[in-house]
Amino acid sequence: MTVTPASQLDAVDPLARFRSRFVAADDPSVVAYLDGNSLGRPLAVTGERLAGFVAGAWGRRLIRSWDEAWLAEPVTVGDRLAEVTLGAAPGQVIVADSTSVLLYKLIRAAVDARPGRDEVLVDRGNFPTDRFVVAGIAADRGLSVRYLDAPHDAGVRPADVAAAVGERTALVVLSQVAYRSGFLADMAAITRATHDAGALILWDLCHSVGAFPIELDACDVDLAAGCTYKYLNGGPGSPAFCYVAARLQDELRQPVWGWMGADDPFAMAADYRPAKGIRKFISGTPPVLAMQPLKDMLELIAEAGLADIRRKSVALTEQAITLAAERLAPLGAVLASPRAAAERGSHVTVDHPCFADVTSALWKQGVIPDFRPPDGIRVGLSPLSTSFAELERGIDAIATELRHRLSG
Amino acid sequence: MTVTPASQLDAVDPLARFRSRFVAADDPSVVAYLDGNSLGRPLAVTGERLAGFVAGAWGRRLIRSWDEAWLAEPVTVGDRLAEVTLGAAPGQVIVADSTSVLLYKLIRAAVDARPGRDEVLVDRGNFPTDRFVVAGIAADRGLSVRYLDAPHDAGVRPADVAAAVGERTALVVLSQVAYRSGFLADMAAITRATHDAGALILWDLCHSVGAFPIELDACDVDLAAGCTYKYLNGGPGSPAFCYVAARLQDELRQPVWGWMGADDPFAMAADYRPAKGIRKFISGTPPVLAMQPLKDMLELIAEAGLADIRRKSVALTEQAITLAAERLAPLGAVLASPRAAAERGSHVTVDHPCFADVTSALWKQGVIPDFRPPDGIRVGLSPLSTSFAELERGIDAIATELRHRLSG
Repeated sequence: MTVTPASQLDAVDPLARFRSRFVAADDPSVVAYLDGNSLGRPLAVTGERLAGFVAGAWGRRLIRSWDEAWLAEPVTVGDRLAEVTLGAAPGQVIVADSTSVLLYKLIRAAVDARPGRDEVLVDRGNFPTDRFVVAGIAADRGLSVRYLDAPHDAGVRPADVAAAVGERTALVVLSQVAYRSGFLADMAAITRATHDAGALILWDLCHSVGAFPIELDACDVDLAAGCTYKYLNGGPGSPAFCYVAARLQDELRQPVWGWMGADDPFAMAADYRPAKGIRKFISGTPPVLAMQPLKDMLELIAEAGLADIRRKSVALTEQAITLAAERLAPLGAVLASPRAAAERGSHVTVDHPCFADVTSALWKQGVIPDFRPPDGIRVGLSPLSTSFAELERGIDAIATELRHRLSG
Repeated sequence: MTVTPASQLDAVDPLARFRSRFVAADDPSVVAYLDGNSLGRPLAVTGERLAGFVAGAWGRRLIRSWDEAWLAEPVTVGDRLAEVTLGAAPGQVIVADSTSVLLYKLIRAAVDARPGRDEVLVDRGNFPTDRFVVAGIAADRGLSVRYLDAPHDAGVRPADVAAAVGERTALVVLSQVAYRSGFLADMAAITRATHDAGALILWDLCHSVGAFPIELDACDVDLAAGCTYKYLNGGPGSPAFCYVAARLQDELRQPVWGWMGADDPFAMAADYRPAKGIRKFISGTPPVLAMQPLKDMLELIAEAGLADIRRKSVALTEQAITLAAERLAPLGAVLASPRAAAERGSHVTVDHPCFADVTSALWKQGVIPDFRPPDGIRVGLSPLSTSFAELERGIDAIATELRHRLSG
């Protein structure tokens, strides 16, 4: 493998022109931002969008905006998110709460809907919140948790699930893209294997949404949830989203009976009656201000097109792997992500025992990857805001810091 | 009672000068905003604060801001809220989630901590979300719900609670200020009566926080929760807060085991171990962007002082009642709020069978109270942003609309 010069790749990148749509993309204090998969950069319009929201919809229309727009937004923004990124028909997605809270509501709803089954299957490499929420619910409901193991640099495959799922399985909880290795699971085949055993499946989409086309309806997925602050650039702690397949919405019942998930909230009724359709998965007052930035990013993704976004994502991860092989492997770093592009999301992890220290040093210089224990540098490549030049500067900075430590 | 002219009251109002700190306080399209207890007006600095946040902490510091500030904010903003408004020592309050989700977590934690007791006591006049969340948990845990009834224009008194609470009671869930009547409950005496029976108490502070000094520690309160978009002007769907008395934090365990409530979240541990102290009540990633507007309002409240805020609040509700007696009662409207100032929060409700129609007509003219079924106009008086002139314009507009209907 020889490294193609970054300047050459940037010159032919059809998405390069979108980089200027983000705040500080060329700020000299940010040498290389390689963590857009933890916190996406803000769009340049976001500050203005929020200030306009404060002055107008909030400041002048005041409470009237609830009737005029906001009450509908968990579903209207959810529908747009479904259309642009999730491959889902309208009426199946809401924007609300945090990922953890939505996972809790969906997992409770799912296991309660399969009362004869007492096991939840979860990937040991799944993100902590998924595992923790499952463990809490299992402890509460007297269920067992069965863990799937996968190689460090990969993730769960259809055969692993087929071998583990059975008549005791109520629910399978997996991430489409593993938060550490970046492994991209086979959603269609795993969902099929799960259904063959009569179980339900919930996909965590945090590390996939916005990075490539997702096909929830086509894959016959039951449930999904994810955050909006990574490739959807919604801002720190922006609201999460969840998907509940239309065919399951009548059957499932979630446990947090808040007024905004009730039928006719403003009737102030004596008893809770869940809203029809996807709205029953709402609990409290929708986080309207916090879902504004997301809207512009959905339009940008629609404009750029997820097929091109995926193409650039593959080129970026390919380049990261080539650069790591050339410049980090000789220093003892080991790739901890899949080599096959079809098995990768939009980030790449490389391990080295010195990487905790290296990451702290890099952050001070404005080179910003993420660190994942025990020893991984995770290079997140946000296709609309990351340049090939930025990636190369980042890998070179990692190499320089590593060399300092090894020679020191 | 004769009505003191609004101009005279505004002229001597020591808080009048703060009105200009809010967006569009003198916008001619908003004739009278009497719903700051549903959605507080934005501060004039809020747009700028958000745009600056986007450009700086989010746009330039990027993911580094989590370490530099944001991870601490649920507790640092919570501590400031506790100090300025709640009468609570540090380490007992977090800002997170929605009120509904926090109520769920606290109520589950409380009833699970009193396993020998099978009853939850709740005011039938409590806000729907409180009643619904209690009903959902009761159905789930096999508990009974016992409802306290109170007169339409008042709320629950210590003797009502003392008579109902007993050895079966696990938890009492009440609002400090009733969302419809505005009745201000006796927190100290009711908490004492609850503790005398060995039960826990949770106070909903949505309609009280920011309108007068609250004394959670002094009243020996166990649990409390509230929203930040009314008198704390945090914006539509801004995050909620909860209080858990320090003495209970070790004992209680909440059910949504998200990673941000775990001890050392970034260790990405195999098993959930709750964080120490108040942080264990966090679940998902903190809603950082959405908690920014709130910070400026807390400083404004500290600057103005809650004693003066309460004084103006009482003067405003007093004036609303006097105006209603003079101008609405002759048209058949009936006061549905307490007459004694000491028993009132910062809003006043007046009932009339025509008020649903009247409210729709008023909103179109920029006169904005709220409607609460079956027939109430609720006049919310936000002491830092409402003028006496605005209040009088509002009551006069209600009278005019009512007269049209009665003569029509």
